[in-house]
Amino acid sequence: MREFILYSRKGRTDGKIKSLREAGRLDVVQECIIASLFLSHDIRRDTIFHAFLYGPPMPPLHLKVHGGFLRDVRTDQQTWGEIFRRVLSGKSHPGIIVEKRSFESLLRELPKEAKIFVLEEGGTDVFEVDFGEHPIFVLGDHIGLPRKVEGFALRYGEKISLGKKPYLAASCITVLNYLLDRLERNKCEGERRV
Amino acid sequence: MREFILYSRKGRTDGKIKSLREAGRLDVVQECIIASLFLSHDIRRDTIFHAFLYGPPMPPLHLKVHGGFLRDVRTDQQTWGEIFRRVLSGKSHPGIIVEKRSFESLLRELPKEAKIFVLEEGGTDVFEVDFGEHPIFVLGDHIGLPRKVEGFALRYGEKISLGKKPYLAASCITVLNYLLDRLERNKCEGERRV
Repeated sequence: MREFILYSRKGRTDGKIKSLREAGRLDVVQECIIASLFLSHDIRRDTIFHAFLYGPPMPPLHLKVHGGFLRDVRTDQQTWGEIFRRVLSGKSHPGIIVEKRSFESLLRELPKEAKIFVLEEGGTDVFEVDFGEHPIFVLGDHIGLPRKVEGFALRYGEKISLGKKPYLAASCITVLNYLLDRLERNKCEGERRV
Repeated sequence: MREFILYSRKGRTDGKIKSLREAGRLDVVQECIIASLFLSHDIRRDTIFHAFLYGPPMPPLHLKVHGGFLRDVRTDQQTWGEIFRRVLSGKSHPGIIVEKRSFESLLRELPKEAKIFVLEEGGTDVFEVDFGEHPIFVLGDHIGLPRKVEGFALRYGEKISLGKKPYLAASCITVLNYLLDRLERNKCEGERRV
């Protein structure tokens, strides 16, 4: 099991969405959903994506997309614009849950066997980290995690780093998924390296 | 210098585009442009992206996006829908060139110092490859490279593999960019490994 948590400072919290970008950068949320859950013609069924939306009019909202149950989706932003409009207006979509909930409340209630990792330039190099069986990654949006939120997350987890380049949040997720895929494969073959 | 070449079997070759997805999956081309050229609040100035569009009404077109000259862009699909409409109607955009040209013709004229790599499941593992100073990567779209085109590309290059999972074309580019970033950084620090 893998989970990715995106903290979206401005992501709009109702269905009044003209463009994803103008709706508090819900386009970043969409890109992160694709990076978390989509392979070519396939979905990562063992992966969960969470976004915490802190934009107007009624933050916070927890948007949870579970790869195991997700149906009727494609990868393009137009399709996801329609899905966001529906689920943020209280309608349903298979595999997606929207609820009034804060980031802090989720973090407090994560399973004990999960390991939490906060992406940050100064953290431990990803190639040196033991991710365990159930890693959960916390990322900021295009602005980054608010300092208080980062401090809270670090009570539960540790800082890891992909390097010094400022990668897009979705790129970080793609790279993490890839490294985890390699670790899983090499573990099957008896190696511990990436 | 890095270059990525996407072969798009169906990508539309004029500006009559309602949605990127319906225009022969130009959304895949857009995702690959972002993966090739965009960092958070920055553009990879040393990178060039090429798409060869083989969709109607007048294939083939070569769409070249040069990170060194690209201006006035954002990462969302709506912005890129407008850019595609403009440049495929013969209008200009800084950093983007559209010309009547085939994939084969570009490959024949690539600089001799460049090394060409074709992504394919059965190729050499990316962690074992010497990319040199000027790697050029050839990828297929969501359908994959036509067999003839792959055969042609392999006259000039070698097969490399990211593993057995069927990654999205854009995910392949993101991972390759990341591995190249690490190689560059480690080279500066005197190491040859990723």
